[in-house]
Amino acid sequence: MKHQSITVHAPATVSNLCCGFDILGMALEEPFDKIRIEHSEHPGILIRHTDAYNLPLDPQLNIAGVALDAMNKALGIGSGFRVEIHKGIKPGSGIGSSAASAAGIVVAANELLGKPFSKTELLKYAMEGEVLASGSRHADNLAPCIFGGLVLVRDTASLDIVALKTAPVFISIVHPQIEIKTSYARQLLPKEIPLFVAVTQWANVAGLVAGFSNGDYGLISRSLHDEVAEPVRSKLIPGFSEVKSASMAGGALGGGISGSGPSIFMLSETRQIAEAVSKRMNAVFNGLGIENFAYVSPINTEGVKIVESA
Amino acid sequence: MKHQSITVHAPATVSNLCCGFDILGMALEEPFDKIRIEHSEHPGILIRHTDAYNLPLDPQLNIAGVALDAMNKALGIGSGFRVEIHKGIKPGSGIGSSAASAAGIVVAANELLGKPFSKTELLKYAMEGEVLASGSRHADNLAPCIFGGLVLVRDTASLDIVALKTAPVFISIVHPQIEIKTSYARQLLPKEIPLFVAVTQWANVAGLVAGFSNGDYGLISRSLHDEVAEPVRSKLIPGFSEVKSASMAGGALGGGISGSGPSIFMLSETRQIAEAVSKRMNAVFNGLGIENFAYVSPINTEGVKIVESA
Repeated sequence: MKHQSITVHAPATVSNLCCGFDILGMALEEPFDKIRIEHSEHPGILIRHTDAYNLPLDPQLNIAGVALDAMNKALGIGSGFRVEIHKGIKPGSGIGSSAASAAGIVVAANELLGKPFSKTELLKYAMEGEVLASGSRHADNLAPCIFGGLVLVRDTASLDIVALKTAPVFISIVHPQIEIKTSYARQLLPKEIPLFVAVTQWANVAGLVAGFSNGDYGLISRSLHDEVAEPVRSKLIPGFSEVKSASMAGGALGGGISGSGPSIFMLSETRQIAEAVSKRMNAVFNGLGIENFAYVSPINTEGVKIVESA
Repeated sequence: MKHQSITVHAPATVSNLCCGFDILGMALEEPFDKIRIEHSEHPGILIRHTDAYNLPLDPQLNIAGVALDAMNKALGIGSGFRVEIHKGIKPGSGIGSSAASAAGIVVAANELLGKPFSKTELLKYAMEGEVLASGSRHADNLAPCIFGGLVLVRDTASLDIVALKTAPVFISIVHPQIEIKTSYARQLLPKEIPLFVAVTQWANVAGLVAGFSNGDYGLISRSLHDEVAEPVRSKLIPGFSEVKSASMAGGALGGGISGSGPSIFMLSETRQIAEAVSKRMNAVFNGLGIENFAYVSPINTEGVKIVESA
């Protein structure tokens, strides 16, 4: 069925999840971007932002524009679109803001056009937007944003995406208002790592996947470690270790840097614990005089949601 | 209940399983060692071997002796034992021969004594035997030998052992009669690996764990790669790549070096395919004039088995 207009909510996502550096990501219920698309009688893409982030409106410089253009070219019929974006996910927060723009627009456009594409095909087009944002091909925010839940990107080149089983967890996010460039956070990473460190990391990845699959919260907790990115990237986030220890003392299963930061995520077994953890995270940054926003969310199991169609 | 004598079968195990280097292992139904233990009126450990491998009989130099001694010291009552070992798993084959000796004897002795120890405690004592054998602390053969099934060693220091869910697979093993010292195979490994290689490896580990958990044979197959040990260690095994390509052409899901070699393992979805794969593996080494032994086995889900008690 074809539509006149489609509105979607494109969720924030936490990539890496400690040990799952570059391969795991999880979708949240909130925050989310709201994206509306409708047909235009004129070919081309007209973008309007109703948020205050001053993002470029030129479709070749706008993440959603680039992703939609890639999809539109694949269709090859030169359709025109009007797009309205309200970003609820602040750019540069480390919770998949660019991925939400790219994934949201392609899911919305696909719905508008009567679903010509599979989710994996949509991921391919959304990736063009992500490349504009970060300069590299990564699907660990895009894939959970499109598929929902906890997602493994087994292989980026072939887009081998695996929906992993999940146990119910609640995610506390705190976003301190400091800026970390993804490209700089990536430069900090070592080019090589000791084999024994790599073995520790993949043992924890195996534990995390098994823990989620079996609902073994103890195992999830013991596996939520990052030996690779956290030791270098956490230095860019003042208060990181205090946030972590306060969260653990508050009952969190574990957590770390969301994506390349500066947001920090913590997983908890219940909403009640996650709310308490959120308050503790918030309090650490307040104590440091750093403005911050905190969220608590369950796992979003469906990814980008169609909230209105006409 | 205490016994006069106990006889066990201690199974062969495949460690590493490609991407799960140093952290995964799987127990087989065959081959296995047969180990009999009985009380002796004299303190100390008397070992007799009924196989032809000329293994040391001094309990301080015999793997089973060292493991049993560690357990006996923990009990602190200076018991005496007579042990008879028939190794069905050839030492140095890469399918957990030393682990079977160490695991088999402690499970047997524990049963003889009325089960004073948990499996994790037994693993700790068996580890002493494994240290004698390989010079390093590894549980990726011992843990599946004791626990059965597919096992994750999430952390060796704390012996955090996770029984993973498995889909039914059949394992084809070929053991070419060439010698590879575990210590030499270990020396060959790089001390550091590129981060992107590590990421590929842990993506495959996550895929393998999820594939086994969900019975997704396609995912198991796509995940059975080893970017770390196989590239260097496979050079020690003449015919390795021919065995692998012949096996894949015969319908195997995938496979690689078992432990540090020289045995090669392949996983298949049915016994029929595994038998055909086994013949192909066998034929490659026959063609190279290398004597070899081949086995086909399902997963052993219970580990060391008590087969006789008196």
